[in-house]
Amino acid sequence: MTLTPSYVTPTCVTDESADDPDFTICTLVRSQEKYDRLLGSFARTGFTPTNSEFLAADNRDGNRFDGYGWQKSLLTRARGRFVVFCHDDVELLGAGHAQLLQALDDLDRTQPDWLLAGVAGGRYRPVQHHRRFLRMHISDPWGDDRLMGGVPGRVETLDECFIVMRRSRPVIGSYDLEGFHFYGPDLCLQAELLGGSAHVIDFHLRHHGGGTKDQSFQEARARFVQKYAPLFPGRHLHCTTGVVHLVPPDAKEGG
Amino acid sequence: MTLTPSYVTPTCVTDESADDPDFTICTLVRSQEKYDRLLGSFARTGFTPTNSEFLAADNRDGNRFDGYGWQKSLLTRARGRFVVFCHDDVELLGAGHAQLLQALDDLDRTQPDWLLAGVAGGRYRPVQHHRRFLRMHISDPWGDDRLMGGVPGRVETLDECFIVMRRSRPVIGSYDLEGFHFYGPDLCLQAELLGGSAHVIDFHLRHHGGGTKDQSFQEARARFVQKYAPLFPGRHLHCTTGVVHLVPPDAKEGG
Repeated sequence: MTLTPSYVTPTCVTDESADDPDFTICTLVRSQEKYDRLLGSFARTGFTPTNSEFLAADNRDGNRFDGYGWQKSLLTRARGRFVVFCHDDVELLGAGHAQLLQALDDLDRTQPDWLLAGVAGGRYRPVQHHRRFLRMHISDPWGDDRLMGGVPGRVETLDECFIVMRRSRPVIGSYDLEGFHFYGPDLCLQAELLGGSAHVIDFHLRHHGGGTKDQSFQEARARFVQKYAPLFPGRHLHCTTGVVHLVPPDAKEGG
Repeated sequence: MTLTPSYVTPTCVTDESADDPDFTICTLVRSQEKYDRLLGSFARTGFTPTNSEFLAADNRDGNRFDGYGWQKSLLTRARGRFVVFCHDDVELLGAGHAQLLQALDDLDRTQPDWLLAGVAGGRYRPVQHHRRFLRMHISDPWGDDRLMGGVPGRVETLDECFIVMRRSRPVIGSYDLEGFHFYGPDLCLQAELLGGSAHVIDFHLRHHGGGTKDQSFQEARARFVQKYAPLFPGRHLHCTTGVVHLVPPDAKEGG
């Protein structure tokens, strides 16, 4: 076993290190108060400094990171077998380390091509489009313990509040989109283009935030449609924020 | 600056660490002898243990890694600002650390959306397809100091012998393709789908290998066409190994 001349010291990479923690919990932090609530809930449900590391993208004093950029920046620092990306207004309710590990190990077994897992998203290529066909198990401003659409199950979009990937099988979001909208759906379409799949798993948590649909949402949707309509012409993409029609700009249609 | 309750210890990620080396040189190693030649040539041209780290994907005793998998495995270990993926039969000839850094810094300046850089590839969306329209500056079994097509310049494919990306702006290859062919073109199309671009830079080196076009090449091309024809219907993709026609399987056409 050489591989090591004197002038440089190559490292021979073979398998994953057994010392890696189970999880890296990456959070986009805007509010210290909310982040403290999140951290407390993770600590109470079995996430320890031994089995997990916590990374924060610090947006407390302004938007240093946007939705598309923060995951890339933190992914390169993550050491966990699984990397969780979540908003700071998430709070675990009871399901914790053991349940998340179990749900992801189940996914490894039943859907070996999985690349992304979340707690709410749009069902994969539904036939009808008159309303959103979603999957979720979540508590949020619209209700407690909402379970719909069949969970676990494959989806074509994920809500950004909680998304997990394997560090060994990463997915990168677009470089030509920006802002805080559609980066979950974008990540799912990139996973699909990479040849993998996205799934909603049964990991009940509370998302305190409700999301906003201001002018920036409309602009982000237009840019998202402009990017993906040529790749998936005519597709109707079911997102937690609404159904997006991937129709090229010259074939005019309302969102 | 809290961010640090007692129960867990979050790490606040802000900017790149100034301690990171300039380069991580990742090599797919099949032959210790060839790798020694590569390492010697890097050491002679200014790559030091201080400014560079060297990672090896060890295929000396069989194909533990395939073309699509080895880059993913090594990328997650890389600490360099730039990550180089190269074959073990590459030898630097004179251009080294300073020249590579200069060429990439130039790219940062002139093509800020760049995601991949290499030394040989197919010109981006050429109009004619009766022959391969390539860009390269390389010495290989077909000639010394071959310079063609205009270098630097944008390309739609890259030869796998030498490909660089920024660690902060990674590109991941497909999960639904395998083997040792077309993973350079695949990486370039994934970069394009991510909204970025690929370029040939002027960094003259020798590639001792010539590549092989056996049965596995034909099979890999068929799978590659099957994957990308629906996304880029009718496109003619210029690769260093030949022009690939992205025609769906039902619209029969020779490669």
